[in-house]
Amino acid sequence: MVKKVAIVGGTHGNELTGVYLVKKWQKDPSQIKRSNFETITLLANPKAVKLCRRYVEKDLNRSFSIQALSKPDNKYESKRAVELNAKLGPKGAKSTNVDFILDLHTTTANMGLSLVVSSQSELTWKAVKYLCAKEPSLKVYRWRGDEEDSFVDSIVPNGFAIEVGPIPQGVLRSDLFFKTQTLTYHLLDFFQKLNDKKELSECERKIEIYDHVKLIDYPRDENGEIAGLVHHERQDRDFEPVKKGDPLFETFDKRTISYEDDEELYALFINEAAYYEKGFAMTLAKKMTL
Amino acid sequence: MVKKVAIVGGTHGNELTGVYLVKKWQKDPSQIKRSNFETITLLANPKAVKLCRRYVEKDLNRSFSIQALSKPDNKYESKRAVELNAKLGPKGAKSTNVDFILDLHTTTANMGLSLVVSSQSELTWKAVKYLCAKEPSLKVYRWRGDEEDSFVDSIVPNGFAIEVGPIPQGVLRSDLFFKTQTLTYHLLDFFQKLNDKKELSECERKIEIYDHVKLIDYPRDENGEIAGLVHHERQDRDFEPVKKGDPLFETFDKRTISYEDDEELYALFINEAAYYEKGFAMTLAKKMTL
Repeated sequence: MVKKVAIVGGTHGNELTGVYLVKKWQKDPSQIKRSNFETITLLANPKAVKLCRRYVEKDLNRSFSIQALSKPDNKYESKRAVELNAKLGPKGAKSTNVDFILDLHTTTANMGLSLVVSSQSELTWKAVKYLCAKEPSLKVYRWRGDEEDSFVDSIVPNGFAIEVGPIPQGVLRSDLFFKTQTLTYHLLDFFQKLNDKKELSECERKIEIYDHVKLIDYPRDENGEIAGLVHHERQDRDFEPVKKGDPLFETFDKRTISYEDDEELYALFINEAAYYEKGFAMTLAKKMTL
Repeated sequence: MVKKVAIVGGTHGNELTGVYLVKKWQKDPSQIKRSNFETITLLANPKAVKLCRRYVEKDLNRSFSIQALSKPDNKYESKRAVELNAKLGPKGAKSTNVDFILDLHTTTANMGLSLVVSSQSELTWKAVKYLCAKEPSLKVYRWRGDEEDSFVDSIVPNGFAIEVGPIPQGVLRSDLFFKTQTLTYHLLDFFQKLNDKKELSECERKIEIYDHVKLIDYPRDENGEIAGLVHHERQDRDFEPVKKGDPLFETFDKRTISYEDDEELYALFINEAAYYEKGFAMTLAKKMTL
């Protein structure tokens, strides 16, 4: 039985879709109300929202590891993570304050409508399958390793992030705003049906997912500065295969840098603004059936 | 005779195309070298570049009015404006340190390859015409009123900004990076030919320009908060006409707000991230032949 669901916006203060959806629902909660469970909404990083920046001092969405929560430093986001953990979790407890966390993000990459899932819980993957049935264009990225246990939605055992793009930071796009809204309503409908013990044939089908393999950084010079661009033939081609010899980057003097591995993988989060400082230009994933 | 040209990048620290072009040319100036004049390059707002933000305390590209320069406040950008004015100008002097300023910008709007021109000088408009001949896709926006005298390129009588988009803030796109580079090289070639007194038939032709008329703000609520989105039928349609009855915005509950004026105008800078805080969602311009 799902009793309480949290919809989180503004984990990154410059990803406005989640910010304005949450503000909308806080003004008028009627559309997120369902009869057999409670839904709460919150802005995770209000200070960053006000500044329209990803974060103030550190990335809030990398601040929820058990270690970070138990020994928080003095940064704004570290303290905010402790507050959110108390409100929604606490993490690792047998019983948490909410059963599911939906975290609303956007990306500058051409990710379309997608989910980033680190949770391995049965409830989470049932929900994923339900949404894939409702939104055939939805892509699913299973993110493992690389700080998966530090995300907002890792506070509780069930949850994931919606990532939609391409949207520049600090911008609202009508098309992706309403698609995110629709997907959220589908998720709430799923919990309602589940609680009502309705038959959910949507959750029985197989789905294709993209399973995280590794990160690829930009070419860099001896000072660690970016020394090239995502190749124009690769730009915007998220969820497409990368084969040996395919161009990945071009240097500022137009020399091509190609993919040299034998294994065919799929490129995701290509040229996401926030990942320049994190040191990756795209992620590579394996396509598989679940 | 053009003796000295300044190419400026990083006036806005999160518009990376200009930042990385300037860095590239500072490492290897061979491609911007011409035989009969000098070209200098500079990063206008290095502190903002380092933070990958538009500005630190205030918009540098609104800091060059005579008034602001003569009575600068204590903000970082105000002091930086005084330094740049001394280096490139000074503004209003009979003889300035450089003859022409090219300022490199990007926009999240679908502006393609465009020029924003406030200068009325003959040299400036000759250069505009030359570039239009070399790059037929180039659009020209004549920006008047609304702080035109506060731009970096207003320090000297001749100059303009290149605006290319759509590019998210904090992102480099290969296609628009190299288009900006090519346009810059054409401009330098123009000065070279002009100094050589070559015949410039390119500057004799008529061009179409978009002449600034007014700014249109987002719908806002009683607290000044954004209460709607650029309509999905308007998004990305920069340089297209807006007629009476055309949808401009949709509210968060999907009510359409239409354009109600009789005068047919053209929409530009639609949904530019940096203009949310300035209070406009797009600008409207008249199309005319020069």
